[in-house]
Amino acid sequence: MAVLNSHEIVAMFLALGVLLASARFFGELAKYLRQPSVVGEIFAGILLGPTILGTVAPAWVEFLFPRGGGSALVLDGLTTLALVLFLLVAGIEVDLSTVWRQGKPAMGVSISGIVFPFIIGFVAAWFFPALLGRGEAVDPLVFALFFGCALSISALPVIAKTLMDLNLYRSDLGMIVIAAAILNDLVGWLVFSVTLGMIGTAGTGGLGILSAAGLALVFAAFMLTIGRWLLHRILPWMQARKSGAGGVLGFTLALALLCGAMTEWFGVHALFGSFLLGVAIGDSFHLREHTRETIKQFVSFFFAPLFFASIGLRVNFALHFDWGLTVIVLVIACIGKVAGCRLGAKWTGVFPREAWAISFAMNARGAMEIVLGLVALQFGVISESLFVSLVVMALVTSMISGPAIQGIIRQRVPPRFIQYLHRQAFLSRLRARDRWEAIRELSQALADISNIRADVIEAAVTAREQIMSTGLSKGVAVPHARIEPLPRPMIGIGFSPAGIDFDASDGEASHVIFMILIPKMDDGAALLIFADITKTFQDPELTQKILQTTEYNELLTLLNAPNPMDRVTGPGTAAPT
Amino acid sequence: MAVLNSHEIVAMFLALGVLLASARFFGELAKYLRQPSVVGEIFAGILLGPTILGTVAPAWVEFLFPRGGGSALVLDGLTTLALVLFLLVAGIEVDLSTVWRQGKPAMGVSISGIVFPFIIGFVAAWFFPALLGRGEAVDPLVFALFFGCALSISALPVIAKTLMDLNLYRSDLGMIVIAAAILNDLVGWLVFSVTLGMIGTAGTGGLGILSAAGLALVFAAFMLTIGRWLLHRILPWMQARKSGAGGVLGFTLALALLCGAMTEWFGVHALFGSFLLGVAIGDSFHLREHTRETIKQFVSFFFAPLFFASIGLRVNFALHFDWGLTVIVLVIACIGKVAGCRLGAKWTGVFPREAWAISFAMNARGAMEIVLGLVALQFGVISESLFVSLVVMALVTSMISGPAIQGIIRQRVPPRFIQYLHRQAFLSRLRARDRWEAIRELSQALADISNIRADVIEAAVTAREQIMSTGLSKGVAVPHARIEPLPRPMIGIGFSPAGIDFDASDGEASHVIFMILIPKMDDGAALLIFADITKTFQDPELTQKILQTTEYNELLTLLNAPNPMDRVTGPGTAAPT
Repeated sequence: MAVLNSHEIVAMFLALGVLLASARFFGELAKYLRQPSVVGEIFAGILLGPTILGTVAPAWVEFLFPRGGGSALVLDGLTTLALVLFLLVAGIEVDLSTVWRQGKPAMGVSISGIVFPFIIGFVAAWFFPALLGRGEAVDPLVFALFFGCALSISALPVIAKTLMDLNLYRSDLGMIVIAAAILNDLVGWLVFSVTLGMIGTAGTGGLGILSAAGLALVFAAFMLTIGRWLLHRILPWMQARKSGAGGVLGFTLALALLCGAMTEWFGVHALFGSFLLGVAIGDSFHLREHTRETIKQFVSFFFAPLFFASIGLRVNFALHFDWGLTVIVLVIACIGKVAGCRLGAKWTGVFPREAWAISFAMNARGAMEIVLGLVALQFGVISESLFVSLVVMALVTSMISGPAIQGIIRQRVPPRFIQYLHRQAFLSRLRARDRWEAIRELSQALADISNIRADVIEAAVTAREQIMSTGLSKGVAVPHARIEPLPRPMIGIGFSPAGIDFDASDGEASHVIFMILIPKMDDGAALLIFADITKTFQDPELTQKILQTTEYNELLTLLNAPNPMDRVTGPGTAAPT
Repeated sequence: MAVLNSHEIVAMFLALGVLLASARFFGELAKYLRQPSVVGEIFAGILLGPTILGTVAPAWVEFLFPRGGGSALVLDGLTTLALVLFLLVAGIEVDLSTVWRQGKPAMGVSISGIVFPFIIGFVAAWFFPALLGRGEAVDPLVFALFFGCALSISALPVIAKTLMDLNLYRSDLGMIVIAAAILNDLVGWLVFSVTLGMIGTAGTGGLGILSAAGLALVFAAFMLTIGRWLLHRILPWMQARKSGAGGVLGFTLALALLCGAMTEWFGVHALFGSFLLGVAIGDSFHLREHTRETIKQFVSFFFAPLFFASIGLRVNFALHFDWGLTVIVLVIACIGKVAGCRLGAKWTGVFPREAWAISFAMNARGAMEIVLGLVALQFGVISESLFVSLVVMALVTSMISGPAIQGIIRQRVPPRFIQYLHRQAFLSRLRARDRWEAIRELSQALADISNIRADVIEAAVTAREQIMSTGLSKGVAVPHARIEPLPRPMIGIGFSPAGIDFDASDGEASHVIFMILIPKMDDGAALLIFADITKTFQDPELTQKILQTTEYNELLTLLNAPNPMDRVTGPGTAAPT
């Protein structure tokens, strides 16, 4: 059996250790600078690879990451494994039921957000292949298909993270974006796998062109129907056995590797197999949170950093950086995606401001585009320059997504949420023990001061809450709904010192419950109110103080008190009714 | 950069997938048969490797696990990585403070349990090197040192698992065994690393013989003092940062890889570096349970099965199996370890029955001996036949450990615990909200019916509880202590319908609390009472029924009711006082 010698083992562990340590360091730094950690992880690779360290001290790079020999092969194998496991996690996070629940707007945004950039990319690549850096001897059709895909896949993990950072993940807007991105991912990868099938990995034992693409589609159809059904039935059986959680962990990983081997054998890269397995197994509610979390944590903090940092080792980013190409790719990518999503949102009745916010959220490409670009580079479909441009495009679109959404939401003078509070809808001691009772109590209070029936309010808010819980972090929950005939937003507020479980993102019980009713025709009011509430309650001390109040005026004084968070929104403390 | 071609990627994922799936399957099967899962995992490799599948269908083995080429190298690299991470987890589980707390008996058992088998092994290997399968051209001293080590290292994970299966993990005996095994591991690995340093990996760029061994010792001393201190200070700083848990996970893994690279460079195998890092970082209570659990789960169910299964791929177990050698190794190993521990236990005042039980618990070699054997095989210190014998010895000692302990404990007619119950020490409704209050209440009740002061009882039981909590699974807790002047065991029983947190192994609150007082001079009574209580409460329905009783007679009727669990201990239902 071929084995590594001691020197190669030293090289391997040194390379892995240095790569992981730097990737994690710069990943944390990126987070600290409010950027997705993938930005920092890729930078670590660029720093350690031929681009920077290779220019300054080429001998060091050759020592750390030799281009040949056993340790180089092991590093390549390990990063391929890392990629496959990263896609497994991406697949597990795809929750198909979310898509169906979001219905029309999500479908509209998603489909239009794929078709539009795909067509723009396809046309551009078809007519200007040389300008865009087509690989040598690549079929123009394959290149055009790839370029279309490269512009149309959104980056679900980056988008989810951005929305969480902005505290919009559990808003209506957030749900539409996530659902659309999920569908987007699924369709995008399927199209890409068919494209790769068309390249057919000629000569390396793969199958023929059409059969590869055909098999990929059959495999996908199988995994999303029968495979999904089977897994949903096998999991509870496994979990009933003794070593439940760990057993399922090993089972999932083994299946992911085997599915990867199968799709790689089809000629469409191992990552599709594990991605589809992830979708199929992640969809089963029998896959426990603990198992998901263990896989996700280990992959996110061990395998993924290794993979993303290794990208920088493969290509000299300075040498292959082409200003013109990068600008073109960036412009085409942004126009295609933003316009596509904007149109889709409009057609399905989303209001303009929210539609813009959705479009910029969807514009983030992040990790996925880079994965796709790397595969295309390895298959020889694209030039190294185009790969560098795609990486830059992916990073830039991810980085501008958050600020763009914030900018759009803040275009008009933001109202403070307290102007929608009502003395009669302030319940200083909720009797409710769960969120459904809390919603009922607050519905009654709001019904008393509006001309809307309590059961209508309760039904609307409950229906919304059932789709996705509204517990924010730090003890605040914001159940809400759009109510047709309401003239302006109304907010009821209830306190629960014992806490009510609103399934909050930080796992804490909610103590301050804002129930927000928004007019059906209001554009973006919910987002502004959300943002304002979140900002106001960033300081946990405020929550503590507020919970002690039983007087409405005292509450207003506390909420109106100048605090450092106010500076962004301005002092706009309108007189509450 | 050297990359794998598509064919090699298919082979790699197929090999990994098949290996992991079979290892997990047979691992679960072994557990089902009440054996350590490592037995099943190794069997999976023997089945898939040259021993069985290679004899039946050699082409399949060559297809799945080619002996040369890129995928073979990657598999070797990955299993080396797996080994290093497995030792990281083993190191994290070494809790040095447990050793100090257990004091004399643990020290005695541990030191005598290392020195005795080491000397026997050393002498045997020194005088009969050819008989025991010394590698060609290996220094007799090195071989003798290695063979001594190979007989003296216990397998902490296997021992812990055996004790948990027998429900003895939290007994006094369990604590002594665990503490002794920890110290054993630490000393054994240090000696082995010095031995490996003496081989010096001549010719592959390692350092000189003495400097390698010296550096290993310096590194160990550094990690266990300054390194430990540093990590203990860095962890809370890191955890205060945003992505706490995941950040620490990545940090730990990166450090483990770097420490591995360093010790490999010294010439003493990468696993020492990660083992020592594990000891140093695991000792800090700042390393959160969640992080430990994530690393442990992923390593135990992904990396470890891959490593153990890969052992079977390296050696043909049938071809190199030598009956005579195996029997000799097994006999020497058992005599050395059992006699050594038995003597150590005797010298430190442990009673005979418990001393035998401790000795057989320590006799389990399991995973550690195999790791050590594999390293020695790779360094050419031992022949393939000796390696096979060591693997068999490790498996057999692990498999007989549990039954042997059970046999020793059950030698005399077991008393049923209910004969030690007292009507006056039955508290159907404890007022206590935590375990300390429960201990106080039961101490008072037991003091009333004995001639021992309540504060004496409370102090003894509390002291014992502070060393290690006594919550068993399924809602039962067994706080206990040895009390000098007691003529016979006494048991108080208290119910807490609301549940009291006794830090039980399954995380559940305890509802039925048995407080057990044992005479200082009683040999093994505590173990028998433990075993009887555990057996009686295997059925959760009994707990439910019992909690409803408030009458002492009703309670006795329920406990005396014939149930299938009784058959093992017999009906011995003596009249309770």
